[in-house]
Amino acid sequence: MEKVPEEEVGQRIRRLQIILAEADLDGAFILQNVDMFYFSGTIQASILFVPREGSPVLMVQKAWKRAQDESPLEKIVRIKNHNQVGQVLRDFGVNMLETAGLEMDVLPVNIYFGYRKYFPQCRWVDISGEIRKLRMIKSPYEIDQVRRAVVILNRGFTDIGELMREGMTELEIDGWLALIARREGHMGILRMRGWNQEMMHAHVLSGESGSEISFLNSPQGGTGNTPAMAQGAGNRSIRKNEPIGIDYGVAVNGYTGDQFRTFVIGNISKTLERAHDCSRDIHRLLVREAKPGVRCSDLYKLAVEEAANKGYSDFFMGHGDGQTRFVGHGIGLEIDEYPIIAQRSEDKIEVGMVIAIEPKFVFPGKGVVGLEDDYLVTASGLERLTLTDQKLMQVHK
Amino acid sequence: MEKVPEEEVGQRIRRLQIILAEADLDGAFILQNVDMFYFSGTIQASILFVPREGSPVLMVQKAWKRAQDESPLEKIVRIKNHNQVGQVLRDFGVNMLETAGLEMDVLPVNIYFGYRKYFPQCRWVDISGEIRKLRMIKSPYEIDQVRRAVVILNRGFTDIGELMREGMTELEIDGWLALIARREGHMGILRMRGWNQEMMHAHVLSGESGSEISFLNSPQGGTGNTPAMAQGAGNRSIRKNEPIGIDYGVAVNGYTGDQFRTFVIGNISKTLERAHDCSRDIHRLLVREAKPGVRCSDLYKLAVEEAANKGYSDFFMGHGDGQTRFVGHGIGLEIDEYPIIAQRSEDKIEVGMVIAIEPKFVFPGKGVVGLEDDYLVTASGLERLTLTDQKLMQVHK
Repeated sequence: MEKVPEEEVGQRIRRLQIILAEADLDGAFILQNVDMFYFSGTIQASILFVPREGSPVLMVQKAWKRAQDESPLEKIVRIKNHNQVGQVLRDFGVNMLETAGLEMDVLPVNIYFGYRKYFPQCRWVDISGEIRKLRMIKSPYEIDQVRRAVVILNRGFTDIGELMREGMTELEIDGWLALIARREGHMGILRMRGWNQEMMHAHVLSGESGSEISFLNSPQGGTGNTPAMAQGAGNRSIRKNEPIGIDYGVAVNGYTGDQFRTFVIGNISKTLERAHDCSRDIHRLLVREAKPGVRCSDLYKLAVEEAANKGYSDFFMGHGDGQTRFVGHGIGLEIDEYPIIAQRSEDKIEVGMVIAIEPKFVFPGKGVVGLEDDYLVTASGLERLTLTDQKLMQVHK
Repeated sequence: MEKVPEEEVGQRIRRLQIILAEADLDGAFILQNVDMFYFSGTIQASILFVPREGSPVLMVQKAWKRAQDESPLEKIVRIKNHNQVGQVLRDFGVNMLETAGLEMDVLPVNIYFGYRKYFPQCRWVDISGEIRKLRMIKSPYEIDQVRRAVVILNRGFTDIGELMREGMTELEIDGWLALIARREGHMGILRMRGWNQEMMHAHVLSGESGSEISFLNSPQGGTGNTPAMAQGAGNRSIRKNEPIGIDYGVAVNGYTGDQFRTFVIGNISKTLERAHDCSRDIHRLLVREAKPGVRCSDLYKLAVEEAANKGYSDFFMGHGDGQTRFVGHGIGLEIDEYPIIAQRSEDKIEVGMVIAIEPKFVFPGKGVVGLEDDYLVTASGLERLTLTDQKLMQVHK
């Protein structure tokens, strides 16, 4: 099993401690799985306390030996319940906690109430935004994991082009993508941070399914096969001469690759083909313009203008009340990481960001077309990580 | 697309309103996806307000038309943000909210703070326990959905026995189970309510992988193929004469079927075989004893005693710090529903519960064996819903 390197965890903790000092906090409790993995190297049921100075303490509730094996942290102790946290910290010399950070964007209210009780004198501060900004800049180790994920995606997109036949259901194609992903090493789930958001390994949306709006914060939704899920592949059979939009994600050692391609058995209409060309043009435009220091909101504006120039404003990134106001997003341990390439973003492009850019066009009753690729921001601009050609995937059968 | 029947939603709302009256609450905000689906029939990004008396109001932030189509509720309105909630409710005549319920077991702190601001005079009460108890008793419609899920599981277990070959990796078998599930209509994800818990469609654990402890609240964990996921199938190839434990779940219209079988190419040792027999004996014992009115804690005790009688105490439901203190759990829209057949449960068996019973034995370094089946509680006792025979799945190749 590949573990998170010790120097990775060490650097992350040091960066968090700088934030704690700047915010004048005595420490932070890291309680959510994903953040815990980032700062400790393990997701075994634990509580991680990171003091402003000194070593973090990982308090493990289950699978203690495994946590010890997976995490390079030094102070790892067993604990039965959250309510022992105060005593454990006192044992480590943390006697008075006056101000501490919590991940208030995801932490359930009842657990928060618990911590208020364990530390009645403490003032609690939301540090989720700071953690997400910290995680926004990827290390070479993290970038390598995304590089491994896009290899699997390329394999999946290549194989599914071979497997695809007129009359197959969206669900069957989705199933094959799941099989390929797991066989090639996808860790099994994709994580999304947003409240009530749920991420599937794939969207396979043919024809008008591609224009079905859903609760998901994504330009395309899909019917799904039940209102209980309400996104992704459904029972529809794929046909000739219609766009088959496939959004596909896999994760390697936690890190997500995220890609979209438009398949067609035969040909799509000129209108859709030109929209697809426009997606490629927006990719080229953003690759040229997304240098370190450029505002994400300015990049979004450029994309919107390019779509408008080609006459596709009403279809860009969705239609109607399904139209979303972004054209890209950070990827990493979660699929909805910072930065968001969006109208309201206040971030600037920085070296080390890994971003999925996904200019898509959604035509009511017709479907979704476009390209989504993953990029690394380097000092000289964007480096494309995705391996698949930026083209319409024409299946000739 | 099959929608949740109007009378289902109507009954659920009325049952919730009885709880609101008993708890002397003016109403409740239902904000989590799964609860929202239960009480409205849709998961489109929304806020559901259920007053103590009168009609609920569904405030939809995205995919408004689809929410209208999916939900049988009458009062459905569009809304941009959570902070408009107060105004919308005033428009519907809800002028003074003094006490209201929230799902505090899952609701993020920041959203809770928002509601405290929108309704500064309101006293907030956790009603998640009441909602989970309400959802514990299934209607005939809900039971039908579980019946459909177990058909897919039976198909998957039958097909995977045919496909399985010595030398295949756990991940490949897991991939085939994903393909079968989706092709046959699995909605795509399984939901788990517990904080930081994550549910995969399958665990495929061969030999010693079956005894790997994980953060998951389950007797078996598995290695996974990375500490970032740390459960389920890994890179290990399956061999002859070792137990291959497969836990498999699918969901139809939101409702989960959950099943475990032990496969072997060849034979397992006598010790493991007797433990497997003991699992079947515990099933028979619980089927005989689990009549309406019986305490869940008493059923758990019976199972523990049966395991002890056979000399398997140290391996029952896990080993070491991975040993879990339950032998069954409710299933429904989430896989960790009430009741829990556990030491500390205060519930009694009631007609309409749907329960997965999973007596498993975990032998360090050797693996996991056992049977998990789904049951419906009827007036005369347990009715087995699972279709697959209660036997060791011997693959002769």
